[in-house]
Amino acid sequence: MVDILHRVGVETSSREKVYEALTTVEGLSGWWTDDTKGIAEVGGVLQFRFPPGGFDMEVVEQLPCERVSWKVIDGPPEWVGTTINWQLRQDGDHTIVMFKHQDWKEPVEFMHHCSTKWATYLMSLKSLVETGAGAPAPRDVHVAFPD
Amino acid sequence: MVDILHRVGVETSSREKVYEALTTVEGLSGWWTDDTKGIAEVGGVLQFRFPPGGFDMEVVEQLPCERVSWKVIDGPPEWVGTTINWQLRQDGDHTIVMFKHQDWKEPVEFMHHCSTKWATYLMSLKSLVETGAGAPAPRDVHVAFPD
Repeated sequence: MVDILHRVGVETSSREKVYEALTTVEGLSGWWTDDTKGIAEVGGVLQFRFPPGGFDMEVVEQLPCERVSWKVIDGPPEWVGTTINWQLRQDGDHTIVMFKHQDWKEPVEFMHHCSTKWATYLMSLKSLVETGAGAPAPRDVHVAFPD
Repeated sequence: MVDILHRVGVETSSREKVYEALTTVEGLSGWWTDDTKGIAEVGGVLQFRFPPGGFDMEVVEQLPCERVSWKVIDGPPEWVGTTINWQLRQDGDHTIVMFKHQDWKEPVEFMHHCSTKWATYLMSLKSLVETGAGAPAPRDVHVAFPD
C-alpha cells in the first residue's frame, strides 16, 4: 500500500473556513469541481464529477475543524477502496492542512499523476480561503493532458 | 521507506529541452533555484541553495533524454541518503516526466510539505520549457510558511 501526501498552509486565523471548504457542497465546489453533489454528512455520499469522469466518496468522519475522512466507493478502479484523510490545525495565522490519499495498491503512473494534480487542487483550496476564488474543474490547473 | 511521486506532461516535441533543464546548471537554475552550482556530470556534485538552506546531490546517472538520477549527500537529515529519479518519454507532442523522490525513512510532516513543493517546482519546469520562464527560488510558489 502506498500513499499520496501533501501539506499546505492557508493564511487564515479561521480553521472554520477551511473546514467548511471540506464539509459543504458549496465549499467543495469552490476548489475541487464545480460539479459536486451529495450529502456532506457522516454516512452520506458525495459525488464529484470532472470532464473525464468522477468519484463517489462516502463521508467516514467529520470532526469539526480537526479531521475529515472519505472512502472512495466508486470511480477509477485504482481509486476504489482508497481513503482520503484531512487534518487541520492552527499555527499562528495559518491553518495547516495535512492531506493523505492512502492505500493505493500499487505506485502506478496514474498515482504519480494524481499526486501532482492533488497538489494543484490543494493550492486551489488555499486560494479559495485566502482570496475567495479557487480553481475548481473545469477551470483547473493542467499538469498534463488530458487531466 | 516511502516515496514522493509526481508526473507532468510538458508540451514540447523535444525531449532534449527537458533533459537539458535537468542536466545543466543553467537549466536547473531556470526552474528549481537561481542559486545552483556544481558539476552536472555523472560523479559530479550539484549544489542547490534556497533562502532556508539547501541540498548537495551527487549525479548518479544521466542517460540522454531518458533518465536522470541524483543521490542526496548533504542537506536536511530527512533528505540525506534519499534518491531523486527522473524518467522522460515522448508521447506525441508532450514529454512525460515521471518523478520519484525515493527512500524517505518515515512519512514525516516535512515529507508532506516537500511533496507539495516538488509539484510546484515540476510545474515550474514545465513552464520553463513551454514558455521560457520558470519560477525558481527565490521567485517560487509558496505553499506554506516559511517554504
